[in-house]
Amino acid sequence: MESPQPLSLGRVLLTGAAGGLGRQLRARLRKRCSLLRVSDVATMEPAQAGEEVVVAPLEDRAAVHQLLAGMDAVVHLGGISTEQPFDAILQANIVGVYNVYEAARKQGVKRIVFASSNHVTGYYRQDEVIDPTMPVRPDGYYGISKAFGENLSRFYFDRYGIETVCLRIGSSFPEPRDRRMLATFLSYDDLERLVVASLTTPIAGHTILYGMSDNATSWWDNTPARHIGYRPQDSSEPFRAAKEAAQPKIDPKDPAAIYQAGGFVHMGPFDN
Amino acid sequence: MESPQPLSLGRVLLTGAAGGLGRQLRARLRKRCSLLRVSDVATMEPAQAGEEVVVAPLEDRAAVHQLLAGMDAVVHLGGISTEQPFDAILQANIVGVYNVYEAARKQGVKRIVFASSNHVTGYYRQDEVIDPTMPVRPDGYYGISKAFGENLSRFYFDRYGIETVCLRIGSSFPEPRDRRMLATFLSYDDLERLVVASLTTPIAGHTILYGMSDNATSWWDNTPARHIGYRPQDSSEPFRAAKEAAQPKIDPKDPAAIYQAGGFVHMGPFDN
Amino acid sequence: MESPQPLSLGRVLLTGAAGGLGRQLRARLRKRCSLLRVSDVATMEPAQAGEEVVVAPLEDRAAVHQLLAGMDAVVHLGGISTEQPFDAILQANIVGVYNVYEAARKQGVKRIVFASSNHVTGYYRQDEVIDPTMPVRPDGYYGISKAFGENLSRFYFDRYGIETVCLRIGSSFPEPRDRRMLATFLSYDDLERLVVASLTTPIAGHTILYGMSDNATSWWDNTPARHIGYRPQDSSEPFRAAKEAAQPKIDPKDPAAIYQAGGFVHMGPFDN
Amino acid sequence: MESPQPLSLGRVLLTGAAGGLGRQLRARLRKRCSLLRVSDVATMEPAQAGEEVVVAPLEDRAAVHQLLAGMDAVVHLGGISTEQPFDAILQANIVGVYNVYEAARKQGVKRIVFASSNHVTGYYRQDEVIDPTMPVRPDGYYGISKAFGENLSRFYFDRYGIETVCLRIGSSFPEPRDRRMLATFLSYDDLERLVVASLTTPIAGHTILYGMSDNATSWWDNTPARHIGYRPQDSSEPFRAAKEAAQPKIDPKDPAAIYQAGGFVHMGPFDN
Amino acid sequence: MESPQPLSLGRVLLTGAAGGLGRQLRARLRKRCSLLRVSDVATMEPAQAGEEVVVAPLEDRAAVHQLLAGMDAVVHLGGISTEQPFDAILQANIVGVYNVYEAARKQGVKRIVFASSNHVTGYYRQDEVIDPTMPVRPDGYYGISKAFGENLSRFYFDRYGIETVCLRIGSSFPEPRDRRMLATFLSYDDLERLVVASLTTPIAGHTILYGMSDNATSWWDNTPARHIGYRPQDSSEPFRAAKEAAQPKIDPKDPAAIYQAGGFVHMGPFDN
Amino acid sequence: MESPQPLSLGRVLLTGAAGGLGRQLRARLRKRCSLLRVSDVATMEPAQAGEEVVVAPLEDRAAVHQLLAGMDAVVHLGGISTEQPFDAILQANIVGVYNVYEAARKQGVKRIVFASSNHVTGYYRQDEVIDPTMPVRPDGYYGISKAFGENLSRFYFDRYGIETVCLRIGSSFPEPRDRRMLATFLSYDDLERLVVASLTTPIAGHTILYGMSDNATSWWDNTPARHIGYRPQDSSEPFRAAKEAAQPKIDPKDPAAIYQAGGFVHMGPFDN
Repeated sequence: MESPQPLSLGRVLLTGAAGGLGRQLRARLRKRCSLLRVSDVATMEPAQAGEEVVVAPLEDRAAVHQLLAGMDAVVHLGGISTEQPFDAILQANIVGVYNVYEAARKQGVKRIVFASSNHVTGYYRQDEVIDPTMPVRPDGYYGISKAFGENLSRFYFDRYGIETVCLRIGSSFPEPRDRRMLATFLSYDDLERLVVASLTTPIAGHTILYGMSDNATSWWDNTPARHIGYRPQDSSEPFRAAKEAAQPKIDPKDPAAIYQAGGFVHMGPFDN
Repeated sequence: MESPQPLSLGRVLLTGAAGGLGRQLRARLRKRCSLLRVSDVATMEPAQAGEEVVVAPLEDRAAVHQLLAGMDAVVHLGGISTEQPFDAILQANIVGVYNVYEAARKQGVKRIVFASSNHVTGYYRQDEVIDPTMPVRPDGYYGISKAFGENLSRFYFDRYGIETVCLRIGSSFPEPRDRRMLATFLSYDDLERLVVASLTTPIAGHTILYGMSDNATSWWDNTPARHIGYRPQDSSEPFRAAKEAAQPKIDPKDPAAIYQAGGFVHMGPFDN
Repeated sequence: MESPQPLSLGRVLLTGAAGGLGRQLRARLRKRCSLLRVSDVATMEPAQAGEEVVVAPLEDRAAVHQLLAGMDAVVHLGGISTEQPFDAILQANIVGVYNVYEAARKQGVKRIVFASSNHVTGYYRQDEVIDPTMPVRPDGYYGISKAFGENLSRFYFDRYGIETVCLRIGSSFPEPRDRRMLATFLSYDDLERLVVASLTTPIAGHTILYGMSDNATSWWDNTPARHIGYRPQDSSEPFRAAKEAAQPKIDPKDPAAIYQAGGFVHMGPFDN
Repeated sequence: MESPQPLSLGRVLLTGAAGGLGRQLRARLRKRCSLLRVSDVATMEPAQAGEEVVVAPLEDRAAVHQLLAGMDAVVHLGGISTEQPFDAILQANIVGVYNVYEAARKQGVKRIVFASSNHVTGYYRQDEVIDPTMPVRPDGYYGISKAFGENLSRFYFDRYGIETVCLRIGSSFPEPRDRRMLATFLSYDDLERLVVASLTTPIAGHTILYGMSDNATSWWDNTPARHIGYRPQDSSEPFRAAKEAAQPKIDPKDPAAIYQAGGFVHMGPFDN
Repeated sequence: MESPQPLSLGRVLLTGAAGGLGRQLRARLRKRCSLLRVSDVATMEPAQAGEEVVVAPLEDRAAVHQLLAGMDAVVHLGGISTEQPFDAILQANIVGVYNVYEAARKQGVKRIVFASSNHVTGYYRQDEVIDPTMPVRPDGYYGISKAFGENLSRFYFDRYGIETVCLRIGSSFPEPRDRRMLATFLSYDDLERLVVASLTTPIAGHTILYGMSDNATSWWDNTPARHIGYRPQDSSEPFRAAKEAAQPKIDPKDPAAIYQAGGFVHMGPFDN
Repeated sequence: MESPQPLSLGRVLLTGAAGGLGRQLRARLRKRCSLLRVSDVATMEPAQAGEEVVVAPLEDRAAVHQLLAGMDAVVHLGGISTEQPFDAILQANIVGVYNVYEAARKQGVKRIVFASSNHVTGYYRQDEVIDPTMPVRPDGYYGISKAFGENLSRFYFDRYGIETVCLRIGSSFPEPRDRRMLATFLSYDDLERLVVASLTTPIAGHTILYGMSDNATSWWDNTPARHIGYRPQDSSEPFRAAKEAAQPKIDPKDPAAIYQAGGFVHMGPFDN
């Protein structure tokens, strides 16, 4: 018996395609889409078969409306993905995500996967386990802007029926970079699983979950989002001994060790 | 070293033995019981060694009392297992389950496994994850009758000490039949594990849990019932690609897609 | 300035109008309805201006459908209101409430106030405080039948949009009759407030709350039902000294003292 | 014995002083402050003794920093207080609140009372009772901007120790204007009590609570914020009969009746 | 009609009768008991009619067993009621409470009111609202010893059926002494109400609640203990202006201001 | 590539090293510590390389302070580990654990792994699933003393920043000894994993979790302690058939079967 084809993702827009995660997802989603349109403000690799490549800033309302035209779904990674001064975050992440949702409303796009961040809840402690229904505690302007996106998308679901899965992504790299990432690690393969599940689950509603692999150590409980069907298959455990050897001492009075935010607690203020 | 025999289930009555799940369980329980009495209103296969076969309608009080005589435990699958007009449900499921519990009280049967149904909570959404302690939201007369059985059995436990494990069975078939069943699938082997665990756990009290395999996508959280010791070993995942290929589009405005009930939301009203 | 008229309740059916609470509510609701239709199986006082009096058993489907014709709302007190053998409960309370809701569906009645009972949760202990979202623990067939009505009405709301306020009435008498009723007492004036609030709140949805006055001692927390707007103004406190004097000793090993059910735990079994 | 003076509020900045609530609070706070600085973009009444009047837009960073210089506390009512197109909200409410908190950080202001809004959770239903720890469900850009302010202020507390009490104000008018406001009404006297309690409680931390009077009908539970010491003394009840007489019928299918948001659900989209 | 006598409390032992609360309760309980036996290690006022006065240290096992002989109930205030070195606490509060419960078991005493303390949860913050089901966070050896008594009494209930009401007393003085006590104040009259309710409620089980008046500012939520029937009638509010005038400034970085413990956080360590 | 060394545990004190679990842990921890100091009141095997062996009773304050000198961490198994008369428990477990924490404070030890016990919550039923945030229900003096240690260690964390992981150990033996232990079993290898994770997690705070293997049947939910990073890899399942065969009947009315405590419910009282 031949194995059936996996479900096609249809016509998908991937924003932020020039970034680290964007490049990973572009290569992985391409083969599952009837059309993959990729966008960024930065230069991207040329379009392959089945792809369209568009350079456009998220702050440009008209350009964003164009980007979403004809799409079935959006994977929205675009914007700034680290802590920066407020004015930069304001444009890229707050105005940007508004433009994406207004475009979705006008263009009739019905499902968005929104790359939120664990920094939405970075001021919980590393000795606490939280779930997505608990109050947010952002650790900077970046986290605040991602909480803004989560709330905006909740509104577009309640008002206009546009579904969103908000992924509070942990640390998605080839491997964990330090001991903190033993808890927050999300392998690229698991990132792909998470995005594909978010795009294909029949009823997504408005759902928030943490983007992490099946790490032994974890601060997050995704029980309220089991309906998405995400099952991680990787873990940070194979990297544990090396990470612990490289960083045997942790200063338990350093806020970067105390809070889930890690080093973000030391960024800013950005005086102006 | 020889492996010890599995725990004998003793003298067990299986009602509804002519139905789909009844036939599966009959074959599987037979070898673990000192006596397996099977009953139904429909014709059943002839008795094998260690079996008794009794045709009896659950509405017949005297017959039901006879059925339970001498039994150690009951697996109660009997009654109607789909949405039907109220009057039919009333007799088979409401009067029927009352007869079973009164018989248990009089005959001294101390443990019942009651086949309830996920339709007890069918009006939760497919983007919600629920657990057995949350308020019921039945999706029809069938679900209401199963909630009746859960409540009746709670009373017989609180008042008379008769233990019941209520199994809110999802979709137990050889394989999932559609994309909804990727979430609700319960393999026959896992059904057997669930029933055996329910019969053999030393203290069952009155417990409600969902009957599902270890599916990647899930709407239900059985954490409050871990004491039963049910560990599913199958999953709907091997069937995913085929089911998605066969049903690539879901109408997100169809109540059958929105609610966990699935197609039950379109049954009735039954005008009379 | 003249005080404005209170909101008219419109055309209201009151079932169970010959019972204790029915007679109280009939007199109190009459003046606020454009039409008050009252029904019972027992003889009632003759109709006054603005009233219709109909003798009809709830088990009579056609009669019940007639009863609801043309009504804006129903206050459903009818049926058996004490512990009795199952067969009696089955007809009056289970078949009866089904007939009422089917009639509501067909006749287009959009709001029902359903007299449920604290006996739906009678097997909680008197040293526990519960709220309406917790699992039911009925203390007899009567309580089970009221839980059935709550679940049935939830279905008619989820499926057909018919709103219900389920009142888990405590002990509504001219005054508490024993020490237990210091906790469960509902004065007639508060009963009226509760029913009027349930009929006039703009959006009732499907709501369950306990019917009690503002008693110092309480086992129930109505926080989840604040939207109904019920504010009790009476209390059992003025009766405390007399009730304590009359019943100075409580046997703490008597299930009737341990459980919220009170004496219901000693009723039955009803052998047949 | 002479009554002691009430606690002085010190040097307080009141933004949005030209608006409806601003004018009320200006008159009420003046006598309790050593200095009351009031600001708005609109014209205000001239300064009285103990007052300073400053016209300044919240979008003007430098002006806002000046406004907060030397203040002990801020009551931040400024910005847009109704649903409007995103670009207007973005400047007045998002950039504006950022400017206020950055100014607080630099100027050493340690306590802010932030006028948030019930529209942060407007997409809960009118038959639900919520508390401030539950996930937000904003009903428009206005509500989203207020959620932004709540999250930003949480960050300034976690990172810089600046305390904020977020008041999710209901409907603060001389009297309720319609039946919905029977649930959301906040009298001016209770508004004053709420602001004064928020300014004087020794440890405010970061607290969110609903601004409502002691209304019989309520959708909100402020239990998690009892430490603020707010005790409403007014109620919508005296206005009930008049409001019900003026609006006897509610369309239960109108989203404005279903959701706590009321008429906000009908505002927008604002095409651009 | 003559008012009935209040319920007699029977034969009651009051330990710690020489202390501040002991003297208050002695005078108030005397008239409601058939016999009031009072004990302390310190000198007490001579016995009045209906009283017995016994000097006995709680560490003296035999003496304590004598104390409880023939009693219907115990109000156990005895032991150390402030932070002290561990060895003193160990004898008076840990060994002492063990002696009381063993004596109760042997002497057949079935109800104990145990004076626990808010210091069992003193390390919660003053901007948190907690209830008695949350994990303890004691603020010193005194609080730890009171948690010990709560746990011990839970065991004696679960194992031997001896009922206990644990009162986590706030600050019971003629009036609040500082601003913290605006939240923790328990008037003597309310203390009496609390103890009387604890002694007379028919089924007490094992219950923990906070001993506070109806203060506007509160850190504690007694909802889970409503069955006790305690309704405070006093409040700290009349003392607010004076307390705020006397202590206008609070240092928000002082742990005594941050934590509910107040000044207890500055006691110890007791070097030895 | 060579595998990196596992993280060294540094200088560790293991108390109770002569007991069953102590001997297991001594052998397993030795190779991961720069120094392993072991202590007990009983005779222990002679010191091997990298070990120090000290005989010292926990009641001896000076000796305990010596024991902790120079240590980085403590694994505190010492004291009595079964139900015994109170006076013995008082010295070994209550005075003993106080001595350990005072020594830690003075000697600057910053992390303690405290062997608590499932008997802290033994009076929950075997048909309940609990988590570490629920109220304790100890089943004897032993359980009470372990709850004391948990509370004391919470205080030393809140006050002095000394971190503790409290392990509510189930049944750690070579294999389960009876059917109850199918739920409570903790293999020695999993015990080691649990202790190592507790010692090496960067931020432990004050955490309580149950010590159990990945048993199919479980009464405990460790979700709130996922940050510790404990992942059991063993299970009681391979022993199930043998244990069930050896103990086919359970008396459901025996408190030892009803409560999680098992046989502890039958110990005592210890008359004196």
